[in-house]
Amino acid sequence: MDQRLHFPALGALYPPDPDSPAGERACFAAALREADRGRFATAPNPCVGAVLATRDGILARGYHVAPGQPHAEVMCLKDARDKGVDPSRATMFVTLEPCNHMGRTPPCTRAILESGVRSVVVGHPDPNPNVAGGGLAFLRENGVNARYSEDPDVRQACADSLADFLVWVGSDLPYVVLKLASTLDGRIATRTGHSQWITGPEARREVHELRRCVDAVLVGGGTFREDDPQLTHRLSEHVAPLDETAGDAHALKQPLAVVATATLPNPGNTCRLLSERPGQTVFLTPPDVAASAEAEALAQCGARVVPAPDMAEGLKRLRAELGVHHVLCEGGGGLGLSLLEAGLVHELRLHMAPKLLGDAKARPLFAGRSSERMDDALGMRLTDARTAGSDLLLTFRPKE
Amino acid sequence: MDQRLHFPALGALYPPDPDSPAGERACFAAALREADRGRFATAPNPCVGAVLATRDGILARGYHVAPGQPHAEVMCLKDARDKGVDPSRATMFVTLEPCNHMGRTPPCTRAILESGVRSVVVGHPDPNPNVAGGGLAFLRENGVNARYSEDPDVRQACADSLADFLVWVGSDLPYVVLKLASTLDGRIATRTGHSQWITGPEARREVHELRRCVDAVLVGGGTFREDDPQLTHRLSEHVAPLDETAGDAHALKQPLAVVATATLPNPGNTCRLLSERPGQTVFLTPPDVAASAEAEALAQCGARVVPAPDMAEGLKRLRAELGVHHVLCEGGGGLGLSLLEAGLVHELRLHMAPKLLGDAKARPLFAGRSSERMDDALGMRLTDARTAGSDLLLTFRPKE
Repeated sequence: MDQRLHFPALGALYPPDPDSPAGERACFAAALREADRGRFATAPNPCVGAVLATRDGILARGYHVAPGQPHAEVMCLKDARDKGVDPSRATMFVTLEPCNHMGRTPPCTRAILESGVRSVVVGHPDPNPNVAGGGLAFLRENGVNARYSEDPDVRQACADSLADFLVWVGSDLPYVVLKLASTLDGRIATRTGHSQWITGPEARREVHELRRCVDAVLVGGGTFREDDPQLTHRLSEHVAPLDETAGDAHALKQPLAVVATATLPNPGNTCRLLSERPGQTVFLTPPDVAASAEAEALAQCGARVVPAPDMAEGLKRLRAELGVHHVLCEGGGGLGLSLLEAGLVHELRLHMAPKLLGDAKARPLFAGRSSERMDDALGMRLTDARTAGSDLLLTFRPKE
Repeated sequence: MDQRLHFPALGALYPPDPDSPAGERACFAAALREADRGRFATAPNPCVGAVLATRDGILARGYHVAPGQPHAEVMCLKDARDKGVDPSRATMFVTLEPCNHMGRTPPCTRAILESGVRSVVVGHPDPNPNVAGGGLAFLRENGVNARYSEDPDVRQACADSLADFLVWVGSDLPYVVLKLASTLDGRIATRTGHSQWITGPEARREVHELRRCVDAVLVGGGTFREDDPQLTHRLSEHVAPLDETAGDAHALKQPLAVVATATLPNPGNTCRLLSERPGQTVFLTPPDVAASAEAEALAQCGARVVPAPDMAEGLKRLRAELGVHHVLCEGGGGLGLSLLEAGLVHELRLHMAPKLLGDAKARPLFAGRSSERMDDALGMRLTDARTAGSDLLLTFRPKE
């Protein structure tokens, strides 16, 4: 019975009239649900969704499944063909501007033209500065009624859906999701550090799903030393898998374990990362520490030590050298806050349990800032709210 | 564009087949929306909603508007008559068992029988021990297919909707709503005490709406001394009124201001409650303090001093002596936590702003407990989530 608030409230009209503003919102809501099916699976490509709609409703759907696979528009046109739908009667709603260049697949603009679609509405322009407007202009030149949506909520929702791709295009950074679990009064552990478990099994399962999706799981040195974490997804151990494919090769692929610390461990000391999966373990550490004897010893164990003068540089090197596109930071609060303050958190997922500790000495979500006035608070934007079991899963993004 | 998660996810089927389990949930969702329209306006009666539905959809609706007015079932049957709907073809879904006794209005069971309705589903039994089952039994004896819903989510949602009435029937207490505003990291003010404003105008407006609905607004002595609050609703001052009736007599009725404190103020000191509305001000204070010269002086100013050995007793006296059925406690956190721990909070409303202070010295939502283990946390149950502007309004109830 898990459910969600939709951001923005793009609502579900049934059947939608795609030519009305409310219908356009409903059609984009459907296209965004399609895009979401590809989330985390398309890097370095964007996750994109498309639908074909008429006054009879949404007649065909498609999304980009994985790099090298057809784009969302082509998948949607294929769905229409499979269902015997005539695309020329329908409007296509697509979350990102169709590509107009030959990549690993032929350009989508050509597929759209050839399908006979007469009307296209786009949620977000192509962020590539060389081709912005290219797809839309090409369609228009060829007689298609193609335009960007003018609905600010649609444009924001499409930008949020494409947020990881926009980070990759606009910077050398990977996309960083910070996930923290707290009580409703903002505590991540008791005064003694006890935290098992704040949230219930459904919310914890979400974390393992997320670990399965990302390329790297990042923690700070304190969490590494105190918790001796594995940072693997262990879906089968915790709860029944979502579907039968959960036991397949994809499920077995584990994220890199990345520890950001100025104090490297002694390889002689036992820790699970070094004893169980040194080859998948990375230490981000200041350059002088990375040149130390401890670093050399860790490298001989099979771990990788990456010199990083600051977190931004460390994250960039993860992407450049290890192909990391999605990072899940699981804390602690010190690392989380430093990433937030440096503008390096692209998405904050707060798993909030409906319980309260009421103890001023219990560990807070974040500590380290000193704020005199409420205006000093770091502003975020709530972009999703869902329940999982009895817990509330909130997604925030940085406020522009 | 404010929206809400529905608890439970009673979903909207369209059109609902009232005979299916999903249809029954959809019909109760509609009946609960009706009940909600009477929330806070029906004391000492319950807020109740009713709908008549067939496979064609929901054909008529009604709710209990105010004491002395017709009950929800009668309003729903009147709505059916007004619309020319034949009730004998429809099933009535009502959140509370129809009354079977003559009160200020004739019994609803009779109105149902006379209308020809052949089928009734009830969300919650009549909590009055003398008449439990009376309404349903009477309908059954007279050939109506009447039953309680067997859907646990429906029963819980109806119990939550009737929570204030269940408190009044089961105890001498008023119904207590604790409302607090915090950042996403659980802070109600900065380290200097600065808190204006945590939430945006839409959420603050909700607080004034709530103050208009309740009989008394309660704060602790610390909040009284530090903030010098008025504890009035000031809808017109803050934001445009919801509708044109906001300027009427109902809007002008102000809640009692109740201060729970062991330290009475000196009437010579200026404070807004005593200078602006002493006749609407109540001090809940230990019996020895209530017998002091300060108490006598406050009484001469027009304020009321109520001796209360503890908060439970104080709240009971508010109900018994001043007819207070709904109390809104606005903190501070110390009073809020003591009420929570004593089981005297029936509903916790947390207005959460999407911002974070990240300062361990900022004022926490609650302080005073000492928890070693996460299991020591006070368990709640999330029963509503809505947005208001950019803020999130969460409702929790005590976990059974």
